[in-house]
Amino acid sequence: MKLAADSSTIEERLADGLLRVERAFDEQLQSALPAVEELCRHAERYRGKLLRPTLLLLSGMGSAQDAPIIDDRHVVAAATVEMIHMATLVHDDVLDDASIRRRCPTVNALRGNETAVILGDYLISNAFHLCSKVGDASLNLRLGAVTNALCEGELVQLSRRHDLSLDRATYIQIVRRKTAVLVGACCEIGARLSGAPTEVVDACYRVGERLGIAFQIQDDLLDLTGDEATVGKSIGRDLEKGKLTLPTILFLERESSKDRVAVLRAIELRDGAALKSLLLASGAVRGARDFACELVADARKELPHLRQPEVRAVFETLADKVVDRAN
Amino acid sequence: MKLAADSSTIEERLADGLLRVERAFDEQLQSALPAVEELCRHAERYRGKLLRPTLLLLSGMGSAQDAPIIDDRHVVAAATVEMIHMATLVHDDVLDDASIRRRCPTVNALRGNETAVILGDYLISNAFHLCSKVGDASLNLRLGAVTNALCEGELVQLSRRHDLSLDRATYIQIVRRKTAVLVGACCEIGARLSGAPTEVVDACYRVGERLGIAFQIQDDLLDLTGDEATVGKSIGRDLEKGKLTLPTILFLERESSKDRVAVLRAIELRDGAALKSLLLASGAVRGARDFACELVADARKELPHLRQPEVRAVFETLADKVVDRAN
Repeated sequence: MKLAADSSTIEERLADGLLRVERAFDEQLQSALPAVEELCRHAERYRGKLLRPTLLLLSGMGSAQDAPIIDDRHVVAAATVEMIHMATLVHDDVLDDASIRRRCPTVNALRGNETAVILGDYLISNAFHLCSKVGDASLNLRLGAVTNALCEGELVQLSRRHDLSLDRATYIQIVRRKTAVLVGACCEIGARLSGAPTEVVDACYRVGERLGIAFQIQDDLLDLTGDEATVGKSIGRDLEKGKLTLPTILFLERESSKDRVAVLRAIELRDGAALKSLLLASGAVRGARDFACELVADARKELPHLRQPEVRAVFETLADKVVDRAN
Repeated sequence: MKLAADSSTIEERLADGLLRVERAFDEQLQSALPAVEELCRHAERYRGKLLRPTLLLLSGMGSAQDAPIIDDRHVVAAATVEMIHMATLVHDDVLDDASIRRRCPTVNALRGNETAVILGDYLISNAFHLCSKVGDASLNLRLGAVTNALCEGELVQLSRRHDLSLDRATYIQIVRRKTAVLVGACCEIGARLSGAPTEVVDACYRVGERLGIAFQIQDDLLDLTGDEATVGKSIGRDLEKGKLTLPTILFLERESSKDRVAVLRAIELRDGAALKSLLLASGAVRGARDFACELVADARKELPHLRQPEVRAVFETLADKVVDRAN
């Protein structure tokens, strides 16, 4: 996902801010131990879109009263949320038996599940350590609540694997916890660190939460309908691991679809090609996409709460890219 | 490990403090989600000796200027270190393919590695969340540095599996990072929260660090020489997973032992019974135990730094139990 250049000043500030985030990230993960250093350098290749830091910095700039400034606390918080995200990627790849991530072998594929488990732990630990450098315990408290929710989302999802009765509301609750709470917190924290009033901070959280759910739906759609070369990571993992996602749930909601038996059979046989074509033909893929687009539209409605109009424009383009992306 | 009753007043305060720690621990891990709640209740069964909270509370009482008081910050910090420890147990059991822990099936044995990975993450996350409730970012910073070291220790250990050239200094560095830094921090934090001066805080860290190394050596000895029924957890895991521990290292240090070939063969064949009897006969087990006892003696030498003499006596008995234990 590239950022649009609607507003060169905001874009330049954002690009500069993201460089500072990358520097803070890399500095935090330096280790004098070769065995650790080597793994950290590998994990850094997972750094992709920087969606979460981007949202935190944009939200921070957009909700400032005066000039849209990115200060050091924004940078450290943004590096922290990216590190939390990277930790979840490393552990997700263990859970999904995934072998490819951002066109590279995963840590579990390269070095085994054991090393991937501890590397993920190391990233979580470093995220909390980095975040503590801001010197604001309430930030730690907030991020601790976020990572609690994140793990709860994963635990509920694990408990519902291979469960064909999973309904839309439960799916959304899982996605909210495992993805959207963190994305919402990025926007919220950006605003809070800029000293925005409560109504702006709350609106920013809602923007991020909606975008986060839409982002995860799009991710799930890519897992179902994308191809590995374009997506750049292992796909078909949801079917393989018994995770029902929105297109399948929407399809099964309709009580008497003629292709119901065929869809259930494709799930049972883990036949990704058959499932994809059935869900495409039935309009269920379209339905899931429409659902995600509605969430993006809802998120955009909150953007007038931002106090800096030039940031709003950049934010709107970014919001659209959440669903208009092929990787 | 039971605590001695040298000083009923201190003992009563400690027992009361540990009850408060357990309460804080359980309150933190409550979840409205049944899938999460059930796992937390299972993990609570792993709670055993409460060595780390005990050391934190004793150190806190011992280094107080006036009365040996346990305040709420001590309690929250003690629950946090126990939660960090429990997270490492859950992930260690994944790494070690262990099936028994505190005489119960492990989470990985019962619910699979995937659930155990995320439950461990949930415990780490909750530990940081709980710790943030103290409202002192420097405490978060310190514990973040501790968990960084802990993961580094595990990563170095993983990188040296099946490496027969592992020497004593590297083994001690691994043990220091993966176990002793946390135990040292328990003593240090207890003292710091009691407002002790730097020299007392530093002495407390040294006490904990030495006890931590001794504790791990004893743990490794039990893995080699103990029996599962007494130890209460899967044993023989070190040999199975290619982890060289102190008795083997001490044995291999001697250049020309006549049983060298037999020991190397036992390691290669993962023949735990043969390895145990060779290392016992050679005196290497005795040597490792002596090494641990020296560390306990060193730790005891620092105890006069504690300002409360009645606490010192309880601490001394606890120190001895670190090596005199069968589980």
